[in-house]
Amino acid sequence: MAVKHDILSVLQEVRDGTLSPEDALLRLKLAPFEDLGYAKVDYHRAVRQGVPEVIYGQSKTTEQIRGILESMRRRGCINILVTRIGPDVAEALKEQFPLRYEPLARLAVALPEPVQSRGSIVVATGGTSDMSVAEEAAITAEVLGNSVTRLYDVGVAGLHRLLSNLEPLMSARAVVAVAGMEGALASVVGGLVDCPVIAVPTSVGYGASLGGLSALLSMLNSCASGTSVVNIDNGFGAGFLASRINQMESAES
Amino acid sequence: MAVKHDILSVLQEVRDGTLSPEDALLRLKLAPFEDLGYAKVDYHRAVRQGVPEVIYGQSKTTEQIRGILESMRRRGCINILVTRIGPDVAEALKEQFPLRYEPLARLAVALPEPVQSRGSIVVATGGTSDMSVAEEAAITAEVLGNSVTRLYDVGVAGLHRLLSNLEPLMSARAVVAVAGMEGALASVVGGLVDCPVIAVPTSVGYGASLGGLSALLSMLNSCASGTSVVNIDNGFGAGFLASRINQMESAES
Amino acid sequence: MAVKHDILSVLQEVRDGTLSPEDALLRLKLAPFEDLGYAKVDYHRAVRQGVPEVIYGQSKTTEQIRGILESMRRRGCINILVTRIGPDVAEALKEQFPLRYEPLARLAVALPEPVQSRGSIVVATGGTSDMSVAEEAAITAEVLGNSVTRLYDVGVAGLHRLLSNLEPLMSARAVVAVAGMEGALASVVGGLVDCPVIAVPTSVGYGASLGGLSALLSMLNSCASGTSVVNIDNGFGAGFLASRINQMESAES
Amino acid sequence: MAVKHDILSVLQEVRDGTLSPEDALLRLKLAPFEDLGYAKVDYHRAVRQGVPEVIYGQSKTTEQIRGILESMRRRGCINILVTRIGPDVAEALKEQFPLRYEPLARLAVALPEPVQSRGSIVVATGGTSDMSVAEEAAITAEVLGNSVTRLYDVGVAGLHRLLSNLEPLMSARAVVAVAGMEGALASVVGGLVDCPVIAVPTSVGYGASLGGLSALLSMLNSCASGTSVVNIDNGFGAGFLASRINQMESAES
Amino acid sequence: MAVKHDILSVLQEVRDGTLSPEDALLRLKLAPFEDLGYAKVDYHRAVRQGVPEVIYGQSKTTEQIRGILESMRRRGCINILVTRIGPDVAEALKEQFPLRYEPLARLAVALPEPVQSRGSIVVATGGTSDMSVAEEAAITAEVLGNSVTRLYDVGVAGLHRLLSNLEPLMSARAVVAVAGMEGALASVVGGLVDCPVIAVPTSVGYGASLGGLSALLSMLNSCASGTSVVNIDNGFGAGFLASRINQMESAES
Amino acid sequence: MAVKHDILSVLQEVRDGTLSPEDALLRLKLAPFEDLGYAKVDYHRAVRQGVPEVIYGQSKTTEQIRGILESMRRRGCINILVTRIGPDVAEALKEQFPLRYEPLARLAVALPEPVQSRGSIVVATGGTSDMSVAEEAAITAEVLGNSVTRLYDVGVAGLHRLLSNLEPLMSARAVVAVAGMEGALASVVGGLVDCPVIAVPTSVGYGASLGGLSALLSMLNSCASGTSVVNIDNGFGAGFLASRINQMESAES
Amino acid sequence: MAVKHDILSVLQEVRDGTLSPEDALLRLKLAPFEDLGYAKVDYHRAVRQGVPEVIYGQSKTTEQIRGILESMRRRGCINILVTRIGPDVAEALKEQFPLRYEPLARLAVALPEPVQSRGSIVVATGGTSDMSVAEEAAITAEVLGNSVTRLYDVGVAGLHRLLSNLEPLMSARAVVAVAGMEGALASVVGGLVDCPVIAVPTSVGYGASLGGLSALLSMLNSCASGTSVVNIDNGFGAGFLASRINQMESAES
Amino acid sequence: MAVKHDILSVLQEVRDGTLSPEDALLRLKLAPFEDLGYAKVDYHRAVRQGVPEVIYGQSKTTEQIRGILESMRRRGCINILVTRIGPDVAEALKEQFPLRYEPLARLAVALPEPVQSRGSIVVATGGTSDMSVAEEAAITAEVLGNSVTRLYDVGVAGLHRLLSNLEPLMSARAVVAVAGMEGALASVVGGLVDCPVIAVPTSVGYGASLGGLSALLSMLNSCASGTSVVNIDNGFGAGFLASRINQMESAES
Repeated sequence: MAVKHDILSVLQEVRDGTLSPEDALLRLKLAPFEDLGYAKVDYHRAVRQGVPEVIYGQSKTTEQIRGILESMRRRGCINILVTRIGPDVAEALKEQFPLRYEPLARLAVALPEPVQSRGSIVVATGGTSDMSVAEEAAITAEVLGNSVTRLYDVGVAGLHRLLSNLEPLMSARAVVAVAGMEGALASVVGGLVDCPVIAVPTSVGYGASLGGLSALLSMLNSCASGTSVVNIDNGFGAGFLASRINQMESAES
Repeated sequence: MAVKHDILSVLQEVRDGTLSPEDALLRLKLAPFEDLGYAKVDYHRAVRQGVPEVIYGQSKTTEQIRGILESMRRRGCINILVTRIGPDVAEALKEQFPLRYEPLARLAVALPEPVQSRGSIVVATGGTSDMSVAEEAAITAEVLGNSVTRLYDVGVAGLHRLLSNLEPLMSARAVVAVAGMEGALASVVGGLVDCPVIAVPTSVGYGASLGGLSALLSMLNSCASGTSVVNIDNGFGAGFLASRINQMESAES
Repeated sequence: MAVKHDILSVLQEVRDGTLSPEDALLRLKLAPFEDLGYAKVDYHRAVRQGVPEVIYGQSKTTEQIRGILESMRRRGCINILVTRIGPDVAEALKEQFPLRYEPLARLAVALPEPVQSRGSIVVATGGTSDMSVAEEAAITAEVLGNSVTRLYDVGVAGLHRLLSNLEPLMSARAVVAVAGMEGALASVVGGLVDCPVIAVPTSVGYGASLGGLSALLSMLNSCASGTSVVNIDNGFGAGFLASRINQMESAES
Repeated sequence: MAVKHDILSVLQEVRDGTLSPEDALLRLKLAPFEDLGYAKVDYHRAVRQGVPEVIYGQSKTTEQIRGILESMRRRGCINILVTRIGPDVAEALKEQFPLRYEPLARLAVALPEPVQSRGSIVVATGGTSDMSVAEEAAITAEVLGNSVTRLYDVGVAGLHRLLSNLEPLMSARAVVAVAGMEGALASVVGGLVDCPVIAVPTSVGYGASLGGLSALLSMLNSCASGTSVVNIDNGFGAGFLASRINQMESAES
Repeated sequence: MAVKHDILSVLQEVRDGTLSPEDALLRLKLAPFEDLGYAKVDYHRAVRQGVPEVIYGQSKTTEQIRGILESMRRRGCINILVTRIGPDVAEALKEQFPLRYEPLARLAVALPEPVQSRGSIVVATGGTSDMSVAEEAAITAEVLGNSVTRLYDVGVAGLHRLLSNLEPLMSARAVVAVAGMEGALASVVGGLVDCPVIAVPTSVGYGASLGGLSALLSMLNSCASGTSVVNIDNGFGAGFLASRINQMESAES
Repeated sequence: MAVKHDILSVLQEVRDGTLSPEDALLRLKLAPFEDLGYAKVDYHRAVRQGVPEVIYGQSKTTEQIRGILESMRRRGCINILVTRIGPDVAEALKEQFPLRYEPLARLAVALPEPVQSRGSIVVATGGTSDMSVAEEAAITAEVLGNSVTRLYDVGVAGLHRLLSNLEPLMSARAVVAVAGMEGALASVVGGLVDCPVIAVPTSVGYGASLGGLSALLSMLNSCASGTSVVNIDNGFGAGFLASRINQMESAES
Repeated sequence: MAVKHDILSVLQEVRDGTLSPEDALLRLKLAPFEDLGYAKVDYHRAVRQGVPEVIYGQSKTTEQIRGILESMRRRGCINILVTRIGPDVAEALKEQFPLRYEPLARLAVALPEPVQSRGSIVVATGGTSDMSVAEEAAITAEVLGNSVTRLYDVGVAGLHRLLSNLEPLMSARAVVAVAGMEGALASVVGGLVDCPVIAVPTSVGYGASLGGLSALLSMLNSCASGTSVVNIDNGFGAGFLASRINQMESAES
Repeated sequence: MAVKHDILSVLQEVRDGTLSPEDALLRLKLAPFEDLGYAKVDYHRAVRQGVPEVIYGQSKTTEQIRGILESMRRRGCINILVTRIGPDVAEALKEQFPLRYEPLARLAVALPEPVQSRGSIVVATGGTSDMSVAEEAAITAEVLGNSVTRLYDVGVAGLHRLLSNLEPLMSARAVVAVAGMEGALASVVGGLVDCPVIAVPTSVGYGASLGGLSALLSMLNSCASGTSVVNIDNGFGAGFLASRINQMESAES
């Protein structure tokens, strides 16, 4: 790998006498951290073709987003997710970049290219008002190259709706369970399937829903094994994690 | 009704001249509040035969409980519930009173007499560790003259356990849903039945169960209509309320 | 019932030889869950005439509500409650549907028809500012065929207001106690009556009322037996549950 | 007053030339703060005879309490309250000091002397289990020279109990309302009387009583004017404040 | 007392044969609760001339406030406090009623008449931004006939500001300590004075001030005896209670 | 599969005329839910050899655990995890079952058999006091057939400890990050690796650690994608989920 | 110092006979507290040239700020910080005062003068959205005469960003660590450096970030010694404290 | 510094041909992180003579502590702090190590040697029950070579106690303000002094003190600039930070 070679070449220069040990020490010290082999963290995503970059749009100005997109385009990135932006921001970005905007998920895909899908992720919601968060998860997963099945409004207060959709649930490799007041969905789904379940509490609701805290606590207390939880309304995080799980290769024994 | 007659007889004595208006005023003033017709609150329970009195045992000494029981026995009470007492207290009370003790529910029935049962109440729990609270509810309801069916360990993480017990659930006139971490039970049951559901959160659990608060919030947010909630671990309250509902007579049109 | 007949007709086709057992198995498997007899949950409301359907309007667009109403009208529904909508939405819906709008309760009854009332439900509030939630409860109960008596502004800080209304309270079959800061109302009412009391905390108040949490906790800790609690501001849920209780038929012994 | 004279005498010495301005400056600077006239704070209690000193016993060793008592005895104090100590500590202190111990209130009066009582304070509790805190309030008030009437177990879930005790309530100059789960007591009492009401939440209860927080919030939200709140279980503070109020002299116009 | 005479006259009519016992029973039963001697609660304020009525304006429409004011004017009330209303509402009310509006306190005095002041109440604030709540307390107390001294912006982070105002503090009969983030004010003042201190936490602040909860908790934990707390931002309640205390007459021994 | 055959045989009997459609309907209705093909939930674990069953020991008596173990032994189970039991319980169980007890993890493996390991899971902790929870996770994963590497005491306050262990972290297929006060571990690890990270907050700590809530919130807010959270101290859940992820087979494209 | 001289001159007048001791006593008593030598608190800032005064602008009107600035200008103040004001307020103030406005920090420096910088403070943030709070800290420190290095967007989820900036971190005399959701920054930085670290939680984030409470708790639980925390979003407080630390002189042994 | 020399010697060996570049690369890669120059973190404390190491004793067995002490002794450490251990553990350790135990602070100094003190730190407490935490801070600071003045029981409810100790406060280079219920201490002290103030909330108290949370919030909201907060009961952390501040050298301009 290139990084190791960089250090190696420094060492070789030292051996060859073209670099004094003192200057080599300085160079090692000043070298960016990633040069020491830890850089995997930062750029490993770009190594495999097609893996998207993500821009968390909420606290950024259109100008800032435009700048980051521009720099990414130069580095050759495609399928860049821009999350949590309004239609006006999307409109402004479209002037400069090919861009697909999903209003319900408040999410854009810049420099969109067709993606090869594989595996199977189910994104389920308790109610229709959880759909916005669910779409953030679903589209994220799709852009990352996963086949996604949506099961919306299958909350446990009407159990038959969930039970009449057992087929896709049972064959999923990862399930994202999105629910607001009705945090029970994660618990019930977790008991039905035998793949990892990622629970996403939503801030939908009123009164004792406490802005999603109630659903969050409920999901953490789920008695079903194989279930874990992400932050309230964090559809992107759930979709990203589901993708990581779905795209696992078989382990070597 | 007797109470009205009491006031009436005072008034009649005034009319008959056997009581001066001034003395009547004093008597009315000194009379316990209930003599004015509001007494329904206090003694109405004793009117209908067999309705038990209840002693909340937790913060009382054996001596205090003994005193109250003695006074109730003199007033002719039977089937007196003594809640939240340990086996040692029960043992001490047995020396003086006929008494049936239920160790799991930590509850005793003093001066027990056979009760005629009617209607149908289901008490369901999410796990086996919720059984203590559930038994408090179930025995309370039974002593109050209700037929009770127990569905224990039917938590939603193993949905088939609940679904294979739909028959008693569907025919219940009131359901008490007792669940700790898995507050989801109330939501699922509430969506299945069309009778009132009383949810009892329990303090069973650890970590983010927050001593029952998590289940409590989850139950309050239940999306199923017809569900209401009592305090954490309040099995007695749920059994008492279920009894009130189960024993409703048809309304006159 | 139709559903049973569906399965029955499948079985009859098998008996008649017009359907092979293997094809029948497939059809049963693919059939929506409710075809198996559990559908009671979903459609049982429509069976008895006059029982309304409910649309939770808060998170839905006018377009969505219109669509659901249209579909319900086709299925023959009447007296459809649409909760938590503003006057503008109501105005828009009125163009297409006969509709009665209650601005205080922010609730509409679409396709309204006269309802036969029976029994007796009391809806009481602690203050005048709790009236909005109380009206949601009261109108829900009325539309569901219950006689409702309103006792507004009878908070316990002026006890005589409550005590001078003991008559309707005492003869109620279910009481909905709506209170914000003054959660005490449920406790006091619960001690006065011997029918089920449904407490509704409201988000009215300021400071340490914590958006209704304070009243909620207070109501859960009520020392009066026979009291249970629904979510903050959940007038609809309380009215619905009160209706279920009021409309109980006598149990068979 | 002595303090002013101290400064005055310094100034007089300066005038008389027996003290240089520079030395006077130093002396003023080093003088304890209270010498400047602010000392009223610390010792004003001892000025009027009979006002007790208080030792908060909870976090002190028997040895420490003994030392403080000894020093107070030397300063001539009587009727010293020692709060929150167990019977064993009391027993140990009795060996050295005349001491009256109140086990229910877990409070002792050291060097007890008869006190002249005046005015009228009512201490009321919601339940019998609030009595320990109530006794701390009542005895504190009595030792401070107030007439105290106890109204225990008059919780609002049995309203008649409270209403049949209106006489002492109505004639009180200050009411201490002690209640655990049933925080409603303060609200109801506050609406009945026209003297200041001091609400004391207690940690009695279980589940959603949250160690007294629920009652605390409920009392803060009381709609009755004239009510204020002290810390959970702070019987001493309530008794002390009630005493201050009861012992007010008429204001000059 | 008038009320007792009312019942007495009923009884006398019974004795005289001009009223049958049955009719008398009905009359007693129908009589407003206050006729039985409990009415002190409701109308006792109007008995003493000049004591104001209060209208909590926050959740009321201008129309409702106008109606209540009109009815009060008919009953002869003066100096009616209308709390928590904006300048526009005040402007609208002024068209019909003589009315003094205090914009900082967001409070109006309708039908204002000169009031005789007596005693001495200090209203102190930690910062300038607490002044709005403080003015609500101060004006309430003034309208109720108390002399009020304002000590604003004397927060403990600049202790000298408080200490240079010891004179009015020391001679107060009641102190209202209003503070937001800096809940310490109540503690420090409580340690300086020997009259009752009423602490008012305010919602002023940011971050961990939690909308006033932080100051509230801080004040409840005050180590200074003689201090009690009202709800966050409840200036009216504090002013009202301070008035009750300030206007105490000397107790009879 | 057997279940389908059961329904099939019912249908065949109908076809053959040996069962009337009406009786068939009844039999289908009464059949346990799992007979309809949904039973996969319950028994699917037993299908694949070697997958362990789990007994949550905390709320169970030794007697109950013994009973469940006995029944499992009869069904041929091996490697049964019994979580959260003390050494005394383990000792008692050993009399009847071959059993390996892990005191640090407070966990036993009953009927232990060698397991074939594969893949690679890293279990990391912030401090040494998190080891108990970590061991629960690690042993669970090992018993389920996963290779586990332990990285204990690599908290981020001493970053070099973590960074000098990048090798195993980088090659893991799933990481379990266990941390108490120092919830930061999950965030840092999540930023370093590109496999799923399961964060386990622990109740270790004091003060503002709030029994693990602080770490829980910190982990939920982790900015690193690919991270999800389980309940406080839920080592078993994390180990179980890590196993599911590690044992994923490659998806079909 | 001037203040001491004031008292001294009073004393000298006494000695000289131009002031009677009684009049001197009065003058001392009336003198502002600071005249007694404690005034260090209030005016000590003005003593050393260039130390700025601060106006907390959030709850003040433009008019009030203008008044305070005017009074400060008369007293000769320069470099006055006005925190938490919008651009409109700044614009209005500019009409009357030379003023530098920093829109990101929402902070102005009125009467700005060049400041001599010394020492070394690092202000680091977890993300770009924490920059507003960070700038408040940085500019405050700069105006107070400190050299400031900004390290923005070095959150621990991308550890290399932080590690490649070790040089300035290692040589800082105080570090301000500003982070929202990612409270981990303080923990990691605290473990890397050996100077005091001031952690500033920010309200940036969503869901379980709870308006900054999550980061606050996380920072308080930091396992790195040498770290302390200020209020959420309190950039000014952190910058001010960092300045105090950075400007420490060597202690005398 | 030694570390740099290690890398340098590797490089020199490469230059000298005694180490191949490939082997050097391996050695650099395997070397503990600190070898690369970042080790300052870990061992920098040992560099300057007399700086103690710390063992957090709470969650460690006597055996573990003994092991760590043994290893430290071998590395030549002296004055090793062992925090949060009981007298029994101290007794056991004494058998093997010279050790001074402080029972109030529950802290030991192993291998104690005289330390040269400098500067000036004040440790102040609100009450006597905060002394345990305060001693942990004070002794930590003393062992680290700082002069410490203790001002105990100077809570703000008796302000004169604090004000009569202004001298040491005013001349301190850092103040540690330890207070439980009375979090106000930090605020008042912060307003009096112009050095950094480190506030330590303690878990002392009851009721609404919430185990120290109330004091914590109060301290965070302190209006005095220059104040920061550490975790509840974290005396060690405060003493350590105070030492860092007190031992600052003058910055170079």
